Amino acid sequence: MSAQSATPSPEHFFRSINAFHVTQALKGAIELNLFTAIAEGATTAKALAEKRQASERGMRILCDFLTVTGFLTKADGAYGLTPDSAMFLDRHLPSYVGDAAKFLLSPTLASGFNDVAAAVRKGGTVISEEGTMSPDNPVWVEFARAMQTLAFGMAQALTGPIKLDPNKKTKVLDIAASHGLYGLMFAQQYPNLEVVAVDWANVLEVGKENAAKFGASDRWRALPGSIFDVDLGDGYDLALIPNFFHHFDPPTNEKLMRKIHAALGPDGRAVTVEFVPNEARTEPPHSVTFAMVMLASTAHGDAYTFAEYEKMFANAGFSRSELVELPVAFEQVIVSYK
Amino acid sequence: MSAQSATPSPEHFFRSINAFHVTQALKGAIELNLFTAIAEGATTAKALAEKRQASERGMRILCDFLTVTGFLTKADGAYGLTPDSAMFLDRHLPSYVGDAAKFLLSPTLASGFNDVAAAVRKGGTVISEEGTMSPDNPVWVEFARAMQTLAFGMAQALTGPIKLDPNKKTKVLDIAASHGLYGLMFAQQYPNLEVVAVDWANVLEVGKENAAKFGASDRWRALPGSIFDVDLGDGYDLALIPNFFHHFDPPTNEKLMRKIHAALGPDGRAVTVEFVPNEARTEPPHSVTFAMVMLASTAHGDAYTFAEYEKMFANAGFSRSELVELPVAFEQVIVSYK
Repeated sequence: MSAQSATPSPEHFFRSINAFHVTQALKGAIELNLFTAIAEGATTAKALAEKRQASERGMRILCDFLTVTGFLTKADGAYGLTPDSAMFLDRHLPSYVGDAAKFLLSPTLASGFNDVAAAVRKGGTVISEEGTMSPDNPVWVEFARAMQTLAFGMAQALTGPIKLDPNKKTKVLDIAASHGLYGLMFAQQYPNLEVVAVDWANVLEVGKENAAKFGASDRWRALPGSIFDVDLGDGYDLALIPNFFHHFDPPTNEKLMRKIHAALGPDGRAVTVEFVPNEARTEPPHSVTFAMVMLASTAHGDAYTFAEYEKMFANAGFSRSELVELPVAFEQVIVSYK
Repeated sequence: MSAQSATPSPEHFFRSINAFHVTQALKGAIELNLFTAIAEGATTAKALAEKRQASERGMRILCDFLTVTGFLTKADGAYGLTPDSAMFLDRHLPSYVGDAAKFLLSPTLASGFNDVAAAVRKGGTVISEEGTMSPDNPVWVEFARAMQTLAFGMAQALTGPIKLDPNKKTKVLDIAASHGLYGLMFAQQYPNLEVVAVDWANVLEVGKENAAKFGASDRWRALPGSIFDVDLGDGYDLALIPNFFHHFDPPTNEKLMRKIHAALGPDGRAVTVEFVPNEARTEPPHSVTFAMVMLASTAHGDAYTFAEYEKMFANAGFSRSELVELPVAFEQVIVSYK
C-alpha cells in the first residue's frame, strides 16, 4: 500500500478500489498451482499453459500481473519466483502457505466484508448475530488446516522468550488450540511437558493429527467444548491463548482471564498471542487493520492495545503484564503473571 | 503493492490475499460519505458516528484502517484527509472520483474476477460469450456516469500535445465517446470544431448532457449504434479512440482502424488513448495489470504494446504511429497518421 504521491492524484484511490484484483489473481494462481509449476522449471507462458492445460494468453496475462504485483520476476520473457514465492508458494515445500487462502477467502469470513458500511453503522458483523463465533462453526476446522503453516513459525518463535524448567514436570493449557501447534512446539522443546488443548471437538481432530506427527500423542490431551464452559483443571505452568481474545468484548475476556487465573499454578503465566496495535492505533499495519476483520466478522471483537490488555488482565487478578516482540512475526505477545 | 522483503516472509502473500479488505473498506467509506464528513469538520470517531448515524466503534475501526492504508491522517485521536483524499474524495468538489467505485465494482465487471483460474484456462472471460462487449450492455452507461471525473483530467491533458488549426473549420470523430469528454475538451478549445460522437444510444445520453453543460450542443452530434456497423461519414481531422481497442483482438481492431482510415481527411490523425505497457510488459504497472481486467471481462481483449499498435495501424493503412506520454496520466497516447 503506497502512500500519498507528491502532487494530488487519484492513483492511490484507483489502485485501492481495484485491490480485489490482486486477491483474485493470487487465488487463481494458487488454484492453478502456478508457483509450483515455475519451481518445476516451466518458466514461459507457453510452457506453463501446456503444464496446466490452460491458454497461453491467460498464463501470460496472469504472470505479468503477478510480476508487477511482486510475486514473480520476468526477464527475457521467462518468469521466475521471488525469494518469498519460492519459499512460501511452492507446494513441494513444507513452508507452503497457499492453503491459507482457503480460510482467508472462505465465504464465511469474506462475506463479512460484503457490506462494510452496514458493519460500521451497526458496530459489528452483519453476517449473523454471532458471526464466526457461533458454536462449532466449521470455519474453525478450515482455519486449523489452512493456517497451520502460517502459524508454525510464530509458534516456534514463541518458545524463545517463554522459558520453562526442562527438569521439572510442567503442564501447558492451550486455549483455542486449533491445529495445536503452539502447545506442541513447547512439547517438542520440553520432554517432561504435558499439553491440555481446549477447542471445539471437530477442530481438535486437527490438533490430534499434529500431536501424532510431532510424536507427542502421549503428552497431548484434547479437552473438547467451549472454553467458557469446560472444567480446565488447575496447576498449569503456562496458559497459551493464541488469537482468541480478539473475538470478544472486554467483559467476556476478563471472565475468561479469571478462569485462566484460577487454572494456573502459583508461578503460572498467561501467554497471549495477538494483533496488538500501539496506543495511538497507527502501527504496526497488520495489527491496526486486523480490527477491521473483527468488525466485519464478529459482534464485539477488536484488536486491543497493550494498555487495554494490561487493564483486562489486572481486573482478572493478574499481578502484571508485559509486551514481548518476537524477532520475526506478524503478531505481538503479552505475558501476564499470576 | 510493496515488493520482496529482505528475508523471505509470507507477509506480502498475506497482505495481498487480503487486499480485497482494502477495496471493501474504501467502498464502505464512500457509501458512508466519510471523507466529505471529515472535510466538513467531523474529525473524531465520535463526531463521525453522530454525523453518519453509525457506531463510534465501527467508525474508529474504519478510520484507523483508512489511516494505515494511506487515505487518512491521524493525530491525537483526530482524523484528517490526505491531500489525495481532500482533492478526490470530498463530494463537494468537482474533482470527486468516488463514483468510479460504482463502475469498477459493478457486479458485471467484478464478477469477471470471481474465477480467475477459469479465465486463464479458457483464455478469456467466463462471465458470458462476449462479456462486457454484448450490445447495449448497461454497464457502459454506468461507466459513462461513474468514470467521467476520472477521465476529465486525461481528456483535458490530451488537447496539449494534439494541436489543430483554430482558424479552420475542423471535425472530430469521437469513437466509443461514452461521457463525450474527449471530444468536448477539443470543442471547448476550438470554437470552429464539430464533434460526431459514436456509441450505444443509451450511453450517448450521458454525452449529450455533457455537451449541453459545456455549451457545445450545437457542435456535438450523436451517432448511435455499433461503431462496426454505422456509416461514419468522412473528412475528419481527428479520430479519437479512447479506451476502446483494448476490448478486441488484433483482426477486429485492424478492421475498425481501416474504417477510421477511410473516414479521416488527407491530413487526418487517429488518436488512441490506452493502457500501453512497454514491450517487455513490465511497466508501467497500471498498463500491465489492465490486461487482467480484459482477460476477466472480455473474450479477446488485451493491453497491447506500442509495437502491437504500430503493426495494427500499419496493416490498416496508416503511414506511421508515435507514442506520446502525457505529463499526468494513467494511460498512454498513440497518434497515427493517415
